[in-house]
Amino acid sequence: MPNKLITLASHSSLQIVHGAKMEGLSTSLVVERRRLNFYKRYSNLVDEFYIVNEFKEGSKLLNSLGDEYILIPHGSLIEYLGVGEVMNLRIKIFGNRKLIEIESNQYDKMNFLKNAGIMIPQIFNNYTKIDKTVIVKLSGAKGGKGYFIAKNEEEVRKGLKKAIDLGLIKNTKEAIVQEYVFGVPMYFHYFYSPYYDRVELTGIDIRYETNVDGLKRIPDALDKPLPSFVVVGNIPVIARESLLPKIIEMGESLNKEAIRRTGKPITGPYCIETIIKDDGQIVAFEFSGRIVAGTNLYINGSPYTWLEWGEQMSVGRRIAKEIKLLGNDLVHYLD
Amino acid sequence: MPNKLITLASHSSLQIVHGAKMEGLSTSLVVERRRLNFYKRYSNLVDEFYIVNEFKEGSKLLNSLGDEYILIPHGSLIEYLGVGEVMNLRIKIFGNRKLIEIESNQYDKMNFLKNAGIMIPQIFNNYTKIDKTVIVKLSGAKGGKGYFIAKNEEEVRKGLKKAIDLGLIKNTKEAIVQEYVFGVPMYFHYFYSPYYDRVELTGIDIRYETNVDGLKRIPDALDKPLPSFVVVGNIPVIARESLLPKIIEMGESLNKEAIRRTGKPITGPYCIETIIKDDGQIVAFEFSGRIVAGTNLYINGSPYTWLEWGEQMSVGRRIAKEIKLLGNDLVHYLD
Amino acid sequence: MPNKLITLASHSSLQIVHGAKMEGLSTSLVVERRRLNFYKRYSNLVDEFYIVNEFKEGSKLLNSLGDEYILIPHGSLIEYLGVGEVMNLRIKIFGNRKLIEIESNQYDKMNFLKNAGIMIPQIFNNYTKIDKTVIVKLSGAKGGKGYFIAKNEEEVRKGLKKAIDLGLIKNTKEAIVQEYVFGVPMYFHYFYSPYYDRVELTGIDIRYETNVDGLKRIPDALDKPLPSFVVVGNIPVIARESLLPKIIEMGESLNKEAIRRTGKPITGPYCIETIIKDDGQIVAFEFSGRIVAGTNLYINGSPYTWLEWGEQMSVGRRIAKEIKLLGNDLVHYLD
Repeated sequence: MPNKLITLASHSSLQIVHGAKMEGLSTSLVVERRRLNFYKRYSNLVDEFYIVNEFKEGSKLLNSLGDEYILIPHGSLIEYLGVGEVMNLRIKIFGNRKLIEIESNQYDKMNFLKNAGIMIPQIFNNYTKIDKTVIVKLSGAKGGKGYFIAKNEEEVRKGLKKAIDLGLIKNTKEAIVQEYVFGVPMYFHYFYSPYYDRVELTGIDIRYETNVDGLKRIPDALDKPLPSFVVVGNIPVIARESLLPKIIEMGESLNKEAIRRTGKPITGPYCIETIIKDDGQIVAFEFSGRIVAGTNLYINGSPYTWLEWGEQMSVGRRIAKEIKLLGNDLVHYLD
Repeated sequence: MPNKLITLASHSSLQIVHGAKMEGLSTSLVVERRRLNFYKRYSNLVDEFYIVNEFKEGSKLLNSLGDEYILIPHGSLIEYLGVGEVMNLRIKIFGNRKLIEIESNQYDKMNFLKNAGIMIPQIFNNYTKIDKTVIVKLSGAKGGKGYFIAKNEEEVRKGLKKAIDLGLIKNTKEAIVQEYVFGVPMYFHYFYSPYYDRVELTGIDIRYETNVDGLKRIPDALDKPLPSFVVVGNIPVIARESLLPKIIEMGESLNKEAIRRTGKPITGPYCIETIIKDDGQIVAFEFSGRIVAGTNLYINGSPYTWLEWGEQMSVGRRIAKEIKLLGNDLVHYLD
Repeated sequence: MPNKLITLASHSSLQIVHGAKMEGLSTSLVVERRRLNFYKRYSNLVDEFYIVNEFKEGSKLLNSLGDEYILIPHGSLIEYLGVGEVMNLRIKIFGNRKLIEIESNQYDKMNFLKNAGIMIPQIFNNYTKIDKTVIVKLSGAKGGKGYFIAKNEEEVRKGLKKAIDLGLIKNTKEAIVQEYVFGVPMYFHYFYSPYYDRVELTGIDIRYETNVDGLKRIPDALDKPLPSFVVVGNIPVIARESLLPKIIEMGESLNKEAIRRTGKPITGPYCIETIIKDDGQIVAFEFSGRIVAGTNLYINGSPYTWLEWGEQMSVGRRIAKEIKLLGNDLVHYLD
C-alpha cells in the first residue's frame, strides 16, 4: 500500500511535509545538495532526505523507489524535470498526470479552459489582427519571466524577437498572444476530493510580481522600465461571498472537463488563474493542474478551510488527509 | 426569548452561521433557490434553510417568523430588500435600525460622521465650485458600481449624464460629489458591546476593487480604460500601533453620535471607511452601521481579536457571544 | 535574575506583552498619560503601568528600575528617546545596543549591510554624478516622512532645500541619496536565537505607505501630488520557497557581521528591508536591529512560525520563549 509521500524540496514542499506530518504520514524530500542546509532546519518534518546534485537527476532517483512512494507534483517538479520526464516517471503521482501535459502547452491549456465552459481572453494567432492591448506569454517560462505587454503587431514582433535573442523561447510558436483583460487578478485554489466526490475552495491569492507591482509606486513623470511579471511571492485575499457559487462552479466545470478529456478527475489540488472584470465576469487566463505556491500562505488554514473544517487545514494537510480517507481505494486515484 | 439567528445567504452569512455554531446557537439562512446547492455545502453550520425564488420575497418570509428569531443585517439585506422594507420589517434585528436609514442617504451619512466629530472630505453641492479632483458616488450603488473620478464641473456633469442614461441613478440628487482625498484606504471594523459597554476594534481591511486595482499594473504609455470601483474582495492589513488610540476614539465617537441621534447605541458590528493622509489625518468617507464583508477575512480571528480574546474570534462569533452574554437583557438591545 | 519585561507603550508593545503573558512572564508598560485609557483595555496583559507625561521622560524612569527588568527595544523607543539616550540607558536591553547606533546613521547602516556581503543600492555622495532615478531619505525621519524620489541633481537639491526649510533635517549631510531600485519591496523578519544558535525567519511583510500606495489608483490624466512614503500599516506576504535559502543566508550574514563589528550577535528580532528585482537579485536598502512593526501582523503566528513551531508563535512570544530557554545564560545576552 503506497503511504510514503515524496516531493522535490522546492515550491510548496515545506507545506506538503508539514501537512503530511499532521496526518501522521511518512515524508521524503529530494533535495539539491546546495540547499540541504536550509531543508535540514525542518528535519522534524522530513523522515528521509534524498540528496542530488541537481534536480534533473531526480527522475532516475524517483524511478528507483519502491511502490510505497507517492509523488506529490508541484510547479518546480515540472520546471526542473521537464514535462516529458514527468509524463514518463514510473513512480505514481497523486494527481492527474495528463493535466500536466495539457498545462504545458499554452494553446492546449486555453482550449481546455474554453471546453470547460470557462471564459478566456481572445487569442491572436494572426498578429496582424491585434486591435487591442495584449499580453505575450512565453511557453514554459519560469514564473512569468519574459512576459510583456504590447499594444500592436509591431510591439509584439519586437518583443518576441528579443525573447528569442535572449534564449527564452526558440520560436514564436512558443509564445501566446492574449488580449490583456482589464480587471483585477484572483487565483482560486481548488481541491477535488474523490472520497467526498466534491470540489472544495481552499483559498485565494494574488501573485506578487516584480517589477510590475513596484512600478505602480513611481510617479508618471519619471522614466520607468517596462513592466516585468516574475512571481516572487503571494498576498492573501478573499472574494465577495456572492462570487463564491460561481467560483466553485468554475472549479467543478474544470474537473468535469478533465474527466471528459482524460477519463479521470483532477484528484487533489489545482488552481484557476483569473481576472475579475468590473462587469462581474471572471476570465481565466491559466490553470494549474496541481498545487500552486499561493497555498503556502495558508499553513494555518485559510478563511475558506476554517469555514469548511473548523480546524487548521492547509492544502498540504488536505492532501495527506485525502490519502488517509481513501484508504484501500487510493490506488484507483494514483496516476 | 429570541435565540435563533437568521440572515440572508450572502455577504457575510457563512461567517455569521459559523460563529453562531461555535457559540452553540441555532442558525437559519434565507437562500435563493439558484444558490441552494452552494449553501448546502455548509449544512453542518445551518439548522434551517428557508428557500425563496428571489431575495425580494424575503420580507414576507421574515415577517412570518416567530419571536424566537433574530435577524442579523448585512449589506446584501439592504441591497436586495431595500431600505424601506428593512425599516418596516416586523422581525427584530441585532443592530440599530435607524443607522441603516441614515447610511442609505449619502448626505445624511456624511453629516452623521461630521456630527460625530470625524473628519470628512469636502462636499460640492454646487458643481461650479469644484476646484480639485473629486470622486462622484452614486446613492445605493452596489459595491461602488458606477463611481467615477473627475477633475472639474464638466467631467462631473458628463459622468452623471452617463450614469442616468445607464439607469444607475434617476437624477443628480442621487449622487454625491466629494473631494478626492489623497492617501491610502483603510476600513476599520468595530463592535459595540452593550454587555461590556465598550467599542472593540475587530479588524482592518483594504477593499480590492476592479478594475482600479488592476489598472495600476499597466504602463502609462498604453491606452487604459477609466478606473472603476467595484468591490470584489478584501485584503488584510494592520495599522501602526500609534494610530490605534485614534482609531478606537473614532469608533467611540460614532457610537456616541448614534446614541445622541437615535437614542440607542449601535449594538454589534459597524465600520468606518477612511483614507489616511500623509500628515496623519484620518478622513472618513463612509460608514456602515452593520457587519461589513471585510470581516470575512478573519474567520480564524484577526491580529486584534487575538490580542483581545486569546482565542479564535470572528465578528460572526463575536455577535453570537454578545447575544449569549446579554442573556435576559438582550431584548433591550434588539431593534 | 532579570524576569520582568518592560517596553514603551507604542509600536509593537501589545504584541510584546501578549507574547510575554503566553509564556507566563511579568510585563510592564511605560505609557503616556494621554494614551493610558487605550492601553488600560489590555490590562489583562500588563502587570504594571508606569505613567509618564511624555515618552522623553522615559529614560529617567527606566534608569530608576531594579535589575529584574529587561527592556525590549523597538522603533518608538529610539524615535522618542533618541539614539544617544538609548545608548546610555542603565537598564539592560534584550538585543544588541550597538546596532541601534549603527542603524541611526544612514551611511553606517548601508556600510554595515555591504560589509555583511548583502547587495545594496548605489549611493550618490557627489550629486553631480546622479545619472538615474534616486530616492532621497532623511536621517531619523519618522516612518519615511519627507522621503522623495528625484531623477537628477537639480530635483535632489530642490527637494533637500525644502526638507531643510520644513525643519525635517538640518543640513544635507542628514540625507542619503540612493539609486531607486526597480522591483518589489519585501521586509524579512528574523530572530537570532542564542539558545539554538540559529537565525529563524519569523515572517515577511510589505509596508503600506501613504500616499504612495494610494496614488497608483489615480488615472494618469489627473493632477496628482508627489508621492510620500509615510508608513501607516503593513500587509502580509510570503516569498517563493526557492527564495527562502537565500533569505535565511542574508539574515545569517547580517548576524555574522554584527559579531565581527560589535563582538556579539544580534540577539532576538531584526529585519532586513529589501527590494526584489526581476533578475532575482535581492537588494537591501535598510535594516532594523530590533523588532519591526510588520511583525504585528502575526499575533497568531505567520506561515513561517507555524511551519517551525506548529503552534501560535508571534515574535513577541518568541522573545519571551527565548528568555525562558536561556535561563541562567540570559545575563550573557543582555546588553
